[in-house]
Amino acid sequence: MKFKLKLSDILGLFPHALTQGECNYDYLTGIASLENATEGDLSFLGNLKYKLQVRTCKASFLILPIDFEGQPGENQIHLRMEDPSHALAVICKFIEDKILPSPKSGIHPTAFVDETAVVDSTASIGPFCFIGSNAFIGSNTQILSHCHIGDGARIGNDSKLHPGVKVLTRCKVGNQVILNAGVVLGSEGYGFDQVKGENLKTPHLGIVVIEDKVEIGANTCIDRARFDESRIGTGTKIDNLVQVGHNVQVGKDCLIVAQVGIAGSVKIEDQVVVGGQAGFAGHITIGKGAKIAGQAGITKDVEAGAFLKGNPALPVQLAQRIAILQRKLPDLFNRFAQIEGNK
Amino acid sequence: MKFKLKLSDILGLFPHALTQGECNYDYLTGIASLENATEGDLSFLGNLKYKLQVRTCKASFLILPIDFEGQPGENQIHLRMEDPSHALAVICKFIEDKILPSPKSGIHPTAFVDETAVVDSTASIGPFCFIGSNAFIGSNTQILSHCHIGDGARIGNDSKLHPGVKVLTRCKVGNQVILNAGVVLGSEGYGFDQVKGENLKTPHLGIVVIEDKVEIGANTCIDRARFDESRIGTGTKIDNLVQVGHNVQVGKDCLIVAQVGIAGSVKIEDQVVVGGQAGFAGHITIGKGAKIAGQAGITKDVEAGAFLKGNPALPVQLAQRIAILQRKLPDLFNRFAQIEGNK
Amino acid sequence: MKFKLKLSDILGLFPHALTQGECNYDYLTGIASLENATEGDLSFLGNLKYKLQVRTCKASFLILPIDFEGQPGENQIHLRMEDPSHALAVICKFIEDKILPSPKSGIHPTAFVDETAVVDSTASIGPFCFIGSNAFIGSNTQILSHCHIGDGARIGNDSKLHPGVKVLTRCKVGNQVILNAGVVLGSEGYGFDQVKGENLKTPHLGIVVIEDKVEIGANTCIDRARFDESRIGTGTKIDNLVQVGHNVQVGKDCLIVAQVGIAGSVKIEDQVVVGGQAGFAGHITIGKGAKIAGQAGITKDVEAGAFLKGNPALPVQLAQRIAILQRKLPDLFNRFAQIEGNK
Repeated sequence: MKFKLKLSDILGLFPHALTQGECNYDYLTGIASLENATEGDLSFLGNLKYKLQVRTCKASFLILPIDFEGQPGENQIHLRMEDPSHALAVICKFIEDKILPSPKSGIHPTAFVDETAVVDSTASIGPFCFIGSNAFIGSNTQILSHCHIGDGARIGNDSKLHPGVKVLTRCKVGNQVILNAGVVLGSEGYGFDQVKGENLKTPHLGIVVIEDKVEIGANTCIDRARFDESRIGTGTKIDNLVQVGHNVQVGKDCLIVAQVGIAGSVKIEDQVVVGGQAGFAGHITIGKGAKIAGQAGITKDVEAGAFLKGNPALPVQLAQRIAILQRKLPDLFNRFAQIEGNK
Repeated sequence: MKFKLKLSDILGLFPHALTQGECNYDYLTGIASLENATEGDLSFLGNLKYKLQVRTCKASFLILPIDFEGQPGENQIHLRMEDPSHALAVICKFIEDKILPSPKSGIHPTAFVDETAVVDSTASIGPFCFIGSNAFIGSNTQILSHCHIGDGARIGNDSKLHPGVKVLTRCKVGNQVILNAGVVLGSEGYGFDQVKGENLKTPHLGIVVIEDKVEIGANTCIDRARFDESRIGTGTKIDNLVQVGHNVQVGKDCLIVAQVGIAGSVKIEDQVVVGGQAGFAGHITIGKGAKIAGQAGITKDVEAGAFLKGNPALPVQLAQRIAILQRKLPDLFNRFAQIEGNK
Repeated sequence: MKFKLKLSDILGLFPHALTQGECNYDYLTGIASLENATEGDLSFLGNLKYKLQVRTCKASFLILPIDFEGQPGENQIHLRMEDPSHALAVICKFIEDKILPSPKSGIHPTAFVDETAVVDSTASIGPFCFIGSNAFIGSNTQILSHCHIGDGARIGNDSKLHPGVKVLTRCKVGNQVILNAGVVLGSEGYGFDQVKGENLKTPHLGIVVIEDKVEIGANTCIDRARFDESRIGTGTKIDNLVQVGHNVQVGKDCLIVAQVGIAGSVKIEDQVVVGGQAGFAGHITIGKGAKIAGQAGITKDVEAGAFLKGNPALPVQLAQRIAILQRKLPDLFNRFAQIEGNK
């Protein structure tokens, strides 16, 4: 990633950082990992397992933990601070604002906004967006191209909807929410009753509610509730291509990785972490802080703090032990045949 | 879900229901589960395992099976009927029509309809829709915003296409079909021939055919056939984010849950039920009424009526028995070592 | 698939083919598999396991390997050539061009093209497309309806973007690339740092690069890199609903089947083949030519040429042997109990 930003602007973001070394650049011209950085770049040590790379790193500016032992090279500056990962986030946000400028506020001439909709004057409505009747769009919210905001839907402040997002009728999205391209909120739940061999549809009347600071990945789908609300709690981050069924309740600060499937009426408590491609059967509860490994299949309630793996899911240590023993099955069968022969 | 509907209109839907009890409400103001219902709400007993909740349910109106034993509470009406689930479907449809009114018939001024396309005068074409040359849209069909109906594609009567649906060239959609947001019908099949190390593309010339009363979930993709038709049979319901490969034939009244993957040329017979995230290898046949558990991996033909689980998939009882024995492997290895030691 | 094409035009595609037999048709009226073909159709023998079907095939024109033993039936022509699969690809491309004519070059009146964007005069920009500032669209490239080409994005020559594709800011797409409907390139990577219990976002500043001759399936998502590039190598074919995380590097001529999930910073070398629904943990390398079975879970580096299956993944022969032994576990436990009883 190459650009040109005044070094003094970057340093100004961290007035309390300790600086070491000197360099003769006035501009930061790139940002890269320790391994890939070159002259003029900024890099950082976020994970201590990479600390040996600092010595050979060619970046001109290095963000390091406060207690890092080592000296800057020639024409190199070390910036020491409490939390390099946080610092990186701040810098990346700064760079993003410079190189990916926000769309202008206002309604694009190709957008269609129903006359009963309320759009804050600081919001931005992109090309070919549809904003339905009685919809509401809050301040500083950016809605990029081809989005559909259904009748009566409500989007809060400082949120960003990437191209092609669909927020269907009456659904609610909070503040500082990011919905990536192609997200669908409020699709019809999958609920049918067998009546004389046919699968009879029961229309789903509820909505989806997305609380503040939630991020949802590209092409992820969240079905609306049967009567009430499917809900994603504050600060939860959902990755791409995830399926969230009707009536699901996800708590706060959860991490749900790509392609996870959550069947209807599941309750996921706060701070649960779910690995990619894991699946949950309907009507179960996942306790606070539980961890679910990738591709696990969860069909029963999970206790708070548990760490499960596999399908059927087992405590991770047992699952790993069984995996090792399975590899020894050919040997076991051979040894066993020998004993039987010896009888 | 809150609203306000005349009680007499609701009761009028069920002239043959037995009513018990009295209440002093003229309006139904909500609908909720037995557990969540409050005064003014309607609720219902669809599954007998919840029958104890009826006694404490605060709903003003309760739909119950004809033979339910119990009396209404104070200011509460019991409606007894043959099939409460069916009744609920009827009521939800009635409520949906009231609170989610259908878009008006006609073509939205922002839509683009090719001059050779035929759109029934009772159909509704939403904002920013594209209707290609020689396409046909039947009576009372609703096409919401940002849909693409390709050249020569045909959509039947009384169908509903949610925002962002793509029905590509020449594909056919029947009557009373629901396509949720972001569905893709007719994408290119995944078929390549290795020629001198390169993967050579063979264009797929076929189409997708969706029969009547099919529902397809958000962002699900169905590839067109190599030469002929990929086909989804009448009454089949497919959930979100499902992959259906080229040439696949799905029978009638199947249920295919979210994130299932079906490789090319699979044949699924009538009334098959497939749990979420299950996968099917190409060129196999799944017999009528078979059940496939979630996350199962199916690589061979499945007999009619079979119930399989796991990967490799096994009859469900064997799979469950093996799962139990696997948990005992650590113990088995220990006991075995002991016997060997004793020899 | 029915149509009407002059037989001489088809035969003209293969001047070096050997022909045998005669028929009294001047037109080719369809194309079908050996099993389904009828009079007037063309069919072909691509896979020798179907060679017995040639004898009973009713097609009027049959493409066969040069060394095929057998004579044409009455009113039937055999076309012998080196590589029937390649010939089929050539014919299908020819038919596709006839029956699915390319959209006209030029910009559809409903599209929005930023005044700073450069669109080649031979390119086609479809209805309701958005082309951002400083974007570039190469020669003969077709962009169908509802696509979003972000600011600074670059699409090469002879590429085809199906409806609803989103190529986000600054991403690069090469020549002869096919992006199926709903593809998202450049969505935000899933990268968060835990700071005081909250998941803090680090904006992702990089892009996605798609090299030449790549095909990507419907609704597949590829996240942009943290700083640099997520990259898909020349000739690689990715199926529908695949997730590719940030910083992923996929080599040349790989095949990645539907619903595969690839976590951040994975490196996949050339000619790797990945079965459907397989998953990869982050930061690992998959060696050249490796094969990964469907639904496998890969959490460690994979050696070049390896063939792995299962989760945890094992060499395919070991995995199959263990699968067989697992089915014998009930028997083993019984026999074991007997031995213990006999002690």
